Amino acid sequence: MRRYASTVVVLLAAAWVLFPVLPAAIAADVVAAPTGVTIPKGYRNWQVVAPSQRDDTDEIRVILGNSIAMKAFRKNVLPFPDGTILAKLAWKRVKSPEFPKTFIPGVAPRIEFMVKDSKKYASTGGWGFGRFIDGKPAPAEVHATCFPCHQANVKDHDFVFTRYAP
Amino acid sequence: MRRYASTVVVLLAAAWVLFPVLPAAIAADVVAAPTGVTIPKGYRNWQVVAPSQRDDTDEIRVILGNSIAMKAFRKNVLPFPDGTILAKLAWKRVKSPEFPKTFIPGVAPRIEFMVKDSKKYASTGGWGFGRFIDGKPAPAEVHATCFPCHQANVKDHDFVFTRYAP
Repeated sequence: MRRYASTVVVLLAAAWVLFPVLPAAIAADVVAAPTGVTIPKGYRNWQVVAPSQRDDTDEIRVILGNSIAMKAFRKNVLPFPDGTILAKLAWKRVKSPEFPKTFIPGVAPRIEFMVKDSKKYASTGGWGFGRFIDGKPAPAEVHATCFPCHQANVKDHDFVFTRYAP
Repeated sequence: MRRYASTVVVLLAAAWVLFPVLPAAIAADVVAAPTGVTIPKGYRNWQVVAPSQRDDTDEIRVILGNSIAMKAFRKNVLPFPDGTILAKLAWKRVKSPEFPKTFIPGVAPRIEFMVKDSKKYASTGGWGFGRFIDGKPAPAEVHATCFPCHQANVKDHDFVFTRYAP
């Protein structure tokens, strides 16, 4: 056991020397919004709840859900169970150079997440909100605007705007 | 073996009597477009390649890909390998009753698929096109319009309009 432990220490030390960039990369990966919400690993591989679109901000969005979220949407379970995570991907819309009648995704101004943890986020309807711009969390005053809008408009749908689009 | 076979026959006969709707449902599930393209099982669970949107048709779309497609998109593999399937889900856009600045999915006028089979569909760039309206394939003359448009506009991208939106 002791021998195993010292092997691990030696390997970790070697990794630190050989790959000095690694700890920074790991640190960046778990950067947290002021709410404690982090960018969930693998979120880009999640299934689609629904797309949405805004003319005023010239954006196309796609809302994805983790497996707990998708199960809840498909079975109309409300409130969403703890562990539900929703991801809102947004892109500025640009005209397709190959088919100008169609708008396609341009730059991605932000990604946003809603994480359900009814105890941790009891004061905001059980949801933790996270907004990230270029991988960095938006400031606290921006995060403070999330829940009031969800509360004002979709209280009866467990504070979630998006519905499943079959 | 013979006993096993007769048990299967009895069970099938019982199923036919007990669930007379079953054979019709199975038949509907494998209905083919004039091109031979069928609605792939589980396509709604596939990952997102990208969304798109059109003002002229008032539609929001999401293009999904099977695992072969997603791998090719993420590794910039061209031409797409045989077995690639793309699904284009479309919805008429409607104003969200809860947040009228946002358009959300309304009725779904059609679903479309592109299936890569370089031998079977050699005459249309290696792609089989399938359009379904309410689960029923569109007529042959509609399918005849697919490839010419893809050929005219995106020949250099293996006849695929959509790019991966990270």
